[in-house]
Amino acid sequence: MTPPTGENDSRERMIGSALELFSAHGYSGTGFRDVISHSGAPRGSIYHHFPRGKTELAEEVIRRNSANFVAHIENLRPTDPIAVLHAYVEWSRRLLEASGCRAGCAVAAVVLEAHDGPELFEMASAGWSAMADGLAAMLRASGVPRQRASGLGTLTVASLQGALVVCRAARDIGPLDAVERELDHTLRAAIDDARS
Amino acid sequence: MTPPTGENDSRERMIGSALELFSAHGYSGTGFRDVISHSGAPRGSIYHHFPRGKTELAEEVIRRNSANFVAHIENLRPTDPIAVLHAYVEWSRRLLEASGCRAGCAVAAVVLEAHDGPELFEMASAGWSAMADGLAAMLRASGVPRQRASGLGTLTVASLQGALVVCRAARDIGPLDAVERELDHTLRAAIDDARS
Repeated sequence: MTPPTGENDSRERMIGSALELFSAHGYSGTGFRDVISHSGAPRGSIYHHFPRGKTELAEEVIRRNSANFVAHIENLRPTDPIAVLHAYVEWSRRLLEASGCRAGCAVAAVVLEAHDGPELFEMASAGWSAMADGLAAMLRASGVPRQRASGLGTLTVASLQGALVVCRAARDIGPLDAVERELDHTLRAAIDDARS
Repeated sequence: MTPPTGENDSRERMIGSALELFSAHGYSGTGFRDVISHSGAPRGSIYHHFPRGKTELAEEVIRRNSANFVAHIENLRPTDPIAVLHAYVEWSRRLLEASGCRAGCAVAAVVLEAHDGPELFEMASAGWSAMADGLAAMLRASGVPRQRASGLGTLTVASLQGALVVCRAARDIGPLDAVERELDHTLRAAIDDARS
């Protein structure tokens, strides 16, 4: 990899700032001014770096979030479905712990607030499908039938997204712990069923 | 019940409009102007009816949402935990179907975007805890041990919240169907375990 040029570096910093700000304050709640001020980028550089404006910034935020998530999973290299589950939970836990349960998923914030054409929704949906499919593939490799494996992948992704919202409201990580415990139980039971 | 006076009627309409607009466009994404225009209330009446401004409006939206949810459940009168689950799913399904998967939970929108002091978060959290506790009480009455009943209540509430976000991104009700199927399976298995 070549290191980013100064020009790119400023753009990359703006994307990182927007990711953080969307996570904490939402998409509509984050203005270009906030991104400029958080990233230390020069005023006026937003439309230079993101000619299509906030939609383009949001696309890059979703891309960055996916890349970060993939790096998180590749770092943990889970080799069975239960390990995949805990790697997914760990991602959510870090988002909450880093913010004292005051920030969550930047992509969910975009989905709840954006009305900027279908691309953002398609990108968000593709990311969540890939997460669900990754777990489903591991479950199928452990013998779980296709429809259940797919359903459990979706249940896991949905319940982790929801846990982020419930934990933020409660200012407490407890609901994520409960979700992790029940998903662990449910996935193990599905694998045991498949073996018996 | 006495019918609302004209004065109250205008306030009630504004709350209903805000509930609908928050569900579709988020909390930051909904301005007072939108609420006035959607409800047909006279300009300038917002601060008359909501002297504490948007925070007070959001409090009333959360209250109205809880009241609507309680009315929905009382109407269905579920008498066992599986029926409670499907009543909860039906609430989410109606939100999605009414909007072509373009709107979700107004309370989640407030939680993801508000920074207006702890009251809104406490109200949101109390509502979700009541939902989780209602299902947990039914599961305990069916013999499911306390910790699992509580965990399954939390899993159900979190996964339905998350399904709303995932379905909106996908513009498709499929993820909610999958979550319903897997929760049904998981709750029945917990009840069977308790009986055996």
